[in-house]
Amino acid sequence: MTVTALTGISQLVTNDPAHDHAEAASGPLGVVRDAAVVLDGDRVLWSGPAANLPSSTADVVVDLGGRAVVPGFVDSHNHLAFAGDRSDEFAARMAGESYSAGGIRSTVAHTRAASDADLAGSVRRLADEALRQGTTTIESKSGYGLSVDDERRSLEAIGTVTREGTFLGAHVVPADHAGRADEYVALVAGEMLDACAPLAKWIDVFCDVGAFDVDQSREILTAGIAAGLLPRIHAGQLAPGGGIQLAVELGAASADHVTHATDDDVEALAGSTTVATLLPGAEFSTRAVYPDARRLLAAGVTVALAADCNPGSSYTTSLPFCIAVAVRDMGMTPAEALWSATAGGAAALRRTDVGHLAVGAAADLVVLDAPSFVHLAYRPGVPLVEAVWRGGVRVAGRAS
Amino acid sequence: MTVTALTGISQLVTNDPAHDHAEAASGPLGVVRDAAVVLDGDRVLWSGPAANLPSSTADVVVDLGGRAVVPGFVDSHNHLAFAGDRSDEFAARMAGESYSAGGIRSTVAHTRAASDADLAGSVRRLADEALRQGTTTIESKSGYGLSVDDERRSLEAIGTVTREGTFLGAHVVPADHAGRADEYVALVAGEMLDACAPLAKWIDVFCDVGAFDVDQSREILTAGIAAGLLPRIHAGQLAPGGGIQLAVELGAASADHVTHATDDDVEALAGSTTVATLLPGAEFSTRAVYPDARRLLAAGVTVALAADCNPGSSYTTSLPFCIAVAVRDMGMTPAEALWSATAGGAAALRRTDVGHLAVGAAADLVVLDAPSFVHLAYRPGVPLVEAVWRGGVRVAGRAS
Ligand SMILES: [Zn+2]
Ligand SMILES: [Zn+2]
Repeated sequence: MTVTALTGISQLVTNDPAHDHAEAASGPLGVVRDAAVVLDGDRVLWSGPAANLPSSTADVVVDLGGRAVVPGFVDSHNHLAFAGDRSDEFAARMAGESYSAGGIRSTVAHTRAASDADLAGSVRRLADEALRQGTTTIESKSGYGLSVDDERRSLEAIGTVTREGTFLGAHVVPADHAGRADEYVALVAGEMLDACAPLAKWIDVFCDVGAFDVDQSREILTAGIAAGLLPRIHAGQLAPGGGIQLAVELGAASADHVTHATDDDVEALAGSTTVATLLPGAEFSTRAVYPDARRLLAAGVTVALAADCNPGSSYTTSLPFCIAVAVRDMGMTPAEALWSATAGGAAALRRTDVGHLAVGAAADLVVLDAPSFVHLAYRPGVPLVEAVWRGGVRVAGRAS
Repeated sequence: MTVTALTGISQLVTNDPAHDHAEAASGPLGVVRDAAVVLDGDRVLWSGPAANLPSSTADVVVDLGGRAVVPGFVDSHNHLAFAGDRSDEFAARMAGESYSAGGIRSTVAHTRAASDADLAGSVRRLADEALRQGTTTIESKSGYGLSVDDERRSLEAIGTVTREGTFLGAHVVPADHAGRADEYVALVAGEMLDACAPLAKWIDVFCDVGAFDVDQSREILTAGIAAGLLPRIHAGQLAPGGGIQLAVELGAASADHVTHATDDDVEALAGSTTVATLLPGAEFSTRAVYPDARRLLAAGVTVALAADCNPGSSYTTSLPFCIAVAVRDMGMTPAEALWSATAGGAAALRRTDVGHLAVGAAADLVVLDAPSFVHLAYRPGVPLVEAVWRGGVRVAGRAS
């Protein structure tokens, strides 16, 4: 195993409150100035002030030249298995024109027509694009197949890239089941689940107006839990509803979007282990109102940020972009937004090995071309990711 | 001279309305599908449908593999000559805290203390960062020196990187002239102008509440014109005022910000050759209300988009980011936003050689890792710039 010491770190974000020294007063970010990190294979062996760096047994020393280092981003909500794009629909929406060419159903048609290799290629392309922007752990849902075979194929494609695969047969009722929603729910909770459960870690439902109601969602999620999957949910994106409280009832790892959370929803989340995952790209790309992160944080809710990469409503893979928008438009501080895109995402995936850089953590980190993590919000749109290390290996970044 | 043919272009934006064929109906963008471009040295020798590509005398053929090509971005408004950063002030503002540590005056102090080499390095670093994001023509103002010598040094630094240098001695009244604004105006229009005019193309004034009033601005701009500089102006960022109509009165190339334009201001701009330059990064980074681009366009005003890169209110160099925000929050279509970031910027700099790809134009172009320019807005935050050509040479981009 190679032992690598990264030195010359102007500011290290550990997300380890043990590093919250009085001087920095950085709270949950556990910021260390003038820091070093030692990686032993795919784990963090040591992190802390460079002055305390153990006299080293490092095989390799890399001087980062006064740059900031943050944990690799953990992106807990994406839809990467699809074919086709919908840029024409986007352009029409931005021009204020109606557009009748199919929306999500157009993506379903393209996805069903795609080969297994094309689907795996889509997931790989977008996960690699996210990696270049610092995302070292990525979740992806199925949900553009919407048949037993096409959902299974979607999860197989996702499985070639990440272990965080989510079965989302209940994304929308497909055209071939129009007017027969309950029949489709039975398919999802029955034969489709049987085919998909072995390929996924999570089960998810789009519980909102125009999609699935609370009873349908409970039926599907309960069946998924019985099949060994862990529940998560889309809820409160378009309108208030019972989806957020259903998430708490079922002990879901996360309720996602929650733009239209009621006071009771916020109270339920605050008293639970369910994370609220906010998806700024969706509101950005649909000109919708943003969720109020400050209200959730003030109530004590654990908040995650994710990209929601999908071709219809949020075709971004950039967590730096999501951080900047969350700070600008959702009332988060730069520190809160960074925590939510790292440790928050890990909580939403019930992972303790990623999202931080304490001893024993995965050796997943991002080197910023900036002296401070604040630049992720202070310098919106600027590609600040200088290098990405995942599993102790430098996997992306500018030529060095 | 090397003749280079770029082929395999899925969609070419020429900004040449001669290419507005009925099929594409792309208006001023002059979009050509399945296109090619031939570069002869630093100029465009030919552009059009690949099927019509002249049997080639090209020395080199580069197949772009089905990607979109757009003119290099022309960024007509930046403040690149400074030292220090103000990330702490930004973080405090985003946390809703007051911050008393000096604002622009802190940047002035750092800039005055910086060496000539440091100032040139700042301009170079930010211009190179912009270039990697597709900006092939960049303007920069002075305005953090605010003394005869430090403004002169700032313009010398700018001159090492771009010919589009702007003398902005009238950025703010410096602390050393507090309460003696008229004396400072006389200095700017006198000794400082004498020192700076030989080093600049443009003269600019920040005409707004808390900065310079219309009479002071007229005095400075008129003196600059007499010294051979071309006028442009910051106006209407913070409040309505006479600055926009002053720009029209003086035949300024551009009035910039114009967030608080009155109906009379819009009418004056529409009847003039003065461009309205919108700066989405400034409103993004200060949580201010965005200007209404749709209102300006509907009145027939020529609109440009620029980054306004500066350490206080808009520390971005990314015109793709500005395009995405202009579409999301300022009512522009993706096509309008792209035109404004290319041909619009060129108009704001009174340049006819850049901002388009007609025959004879500068060989400045951007290859997108996308099949359509719409992706610049459809995929917010994603670094889509695959390669940049400037003066006929590939100067930036991913390893190929
Ligand atoms: Zn989703
Ligand atoms: Zn400015």
